[in-house]
Amino acid sequence: MKQAEQQEKVVNGVNVNDFFSTIDAIKGEPQIAKFTFKAVNKWDQGSANRTIVNEFEGACQTFNRKEPFIFQKDEPPILLGNDSGANPAEFALAALAGCLTTSLIYHAAARGVRIEEVESTYSGDLDLHGFLGLDENVRNGYEGVKISFKVKGDAPEETLKELVGLAQKRSPVFDVFTNKVPVSVSYER
Amino acid sequence: MKQAEQQEKVVNGVNVNDFFSTIDAIKGEPQIAKFTFKAVNKWDQGSANRTIVNEFEGACQTFNRKEPFIFQKDEPPILLGNDSGANPAEFALAALAGCLTTSLIYHAAARGVRIEEVESTYSGDLDLHGFLGLDENVRNGYEGVKISFKVKGDAPEETLKELVGLAQKRSPVFDVFTNKVPVSVSYER
Repeated sequence: MKQAEQQEKVVNGVNVNDFFSTIDAIKGEPQIAKFTFKAVNKWDQGSANRTIVNEFEGACQTFNRKEPFIFQKDEPPILLGNDSGANPAEFALAALAGCLTTSLIYHAAARGVRIEEVESTYSGDLDLHGFLGLDENVRNGYEGVKISFKVKGDAPEETLKELVGLAQKRSPVFDVFTNKVPVSVSYER
Repeated sequence: MKQAEQQEKVVNGVNVNDFFSTIDAIKGEPQIAKFTFKAVNKWDQGSANRTIVNEFEGACQTFNRKEPFIFQKDEPPILLGNDSGANPAEFALAALAGCLTTSLIYHAAARGVRIEEVESTYSGDLDLHGFLGLDENVRNGYEGVKISFKVKGDAPEETLKELVGLAQKRSPVFDVFTNKVPVSVSYER
């Protein structure tokens, strides 16, 4: 491919040359594929707490953002809070939504499929019998999540549908929802 | 308990009378324990997308917030984005952090344990071989998450440590991370 053509290779806002360069670099040095994402959480009062996201490690380096991202969490009044932020279960849906969308866009770009619009809706059912410990047969978390995708792009409908499938197949947060993650919790003095 | 005492029963910013009234109400009418949380996601460009959180259903009613909560997501430059927001994998940690913290606070309040401070740190390891489809033996999502809790409160250390365990046992998002959630995805024309 000629230099001029290479420079133009941005699809869906994703620099496809950089995407494939990353893949080549990882093939040469697998260690650079390892990332560690981090968060610090501080309780405020009642159901209100804040998460600070800034530093992460990846490609054998440590990165910091210009400004940390701060997320206020709370519960609505019916769940005894003051609605100063979305609740953690809603944040989980936001994580899932962002990850499926980005996975779809990146893999579409890698295949040269130009996307015009992606909208998706999420709904997750949760029964408080779990959280409150009232029924050990009811799980604490989402009993099920339903998602619906609308995708418009410069490809046959069958291809767009396949990309929604590929997003599920590749999305890190979809994997977190649908498979078990080993989580270890320690208590510091 | 006398009326005056009942009115004062706020522990850790949680109205404990309301907490136990909720439990009594659910015992009388199990259906009110069912909640559905929702989100709508719209793709902007590249790795940038927004999640809008507003309406939810619970206690046989539909609720809307005064203003929707809007979450900007992006990727850092090393992952081909512009850092206009935290990335979805970081949002997942924020969800987990908020949920463990609130679970700890509510269950401490229900037991009458006054908490002064809760700080927790999260770190999740993710290998891009999964997302990029370079190695089918590497999962897409977090290979593991490590959490550390610092809790100060008006109780023996053993009790505070037990509360960290109880938070894990009861937290909805901890359940989402550590157990499989059935997720169904449909494609709309």
